[in-house]
Amino acid sequence: MSLFGISLKSRRPKTAQTAKDRLQILLAHERGRGSDSPDYLQDLQRDIVQAVRKYVDIGLDDVDVRMDRSNDISSLEINVEIPSAAAKSAKKS
Amino acid sequence: MSLFGISLKSRRPKTAQTAKDRLQILLAHERGRGSDSPDYLQDLQRDIVQAVRKYVDIGLDDVDVRMDRSNDISSLEINVEIPSAAAKSAKKS
Repeated sequence: MSLFGISLKSRRPKTAQTAKDRLQILLAHERGRGSDSPDYLQDLQRDIVQAVRKYVDIGLDDVDVRMDRSNDISSLEINVEIPSAAAKSAKKS
Repeated sequence: MSLFGISLKSRRPKTAQTAKDRLQILLAHERGRGSDSPDYLQDLQRDIVQAVRKYVDIGLDDVDVRMDRSNDISSLEINVEIPSAAAKSAKKS
């Protein structure tokens, strides 16, 4: 069962194609009953942005992060706008 | 506008708390008009699973990956079931 209550198939809203590439990453960590596991989403978020930068040249201002936390679920949304010349391997001259 | 057509707030289905911790990661890469950027979601997925393993001890069979691709959007869903004794820093004896 998806923590986000949606399936991969039904997700894409019909929107006009944008000029820029966009990357969106959603993370949800659900803690089980009695779990005292630490909340590592913020550390994971930093690692993921670092991983994205291996593939595209983005600056910190291209990345927008939102967090949400209830008692048993922490969730995080990372939105990245990718300048068109940013893709690292596509534009090998 | 969320590539998944949902906002972070409205996402958590009301389900009974599970026994195990769960981590779900959704990635969507929308290519802009005329973009010929390569599809790096699979490489990014490998990097993300590696990053998750810094925080929790998981085996390959704890990770379920699903991919979906239309002409301008590639999306990826990573579901991780985390065995209760797996959290690395929480259980320091």
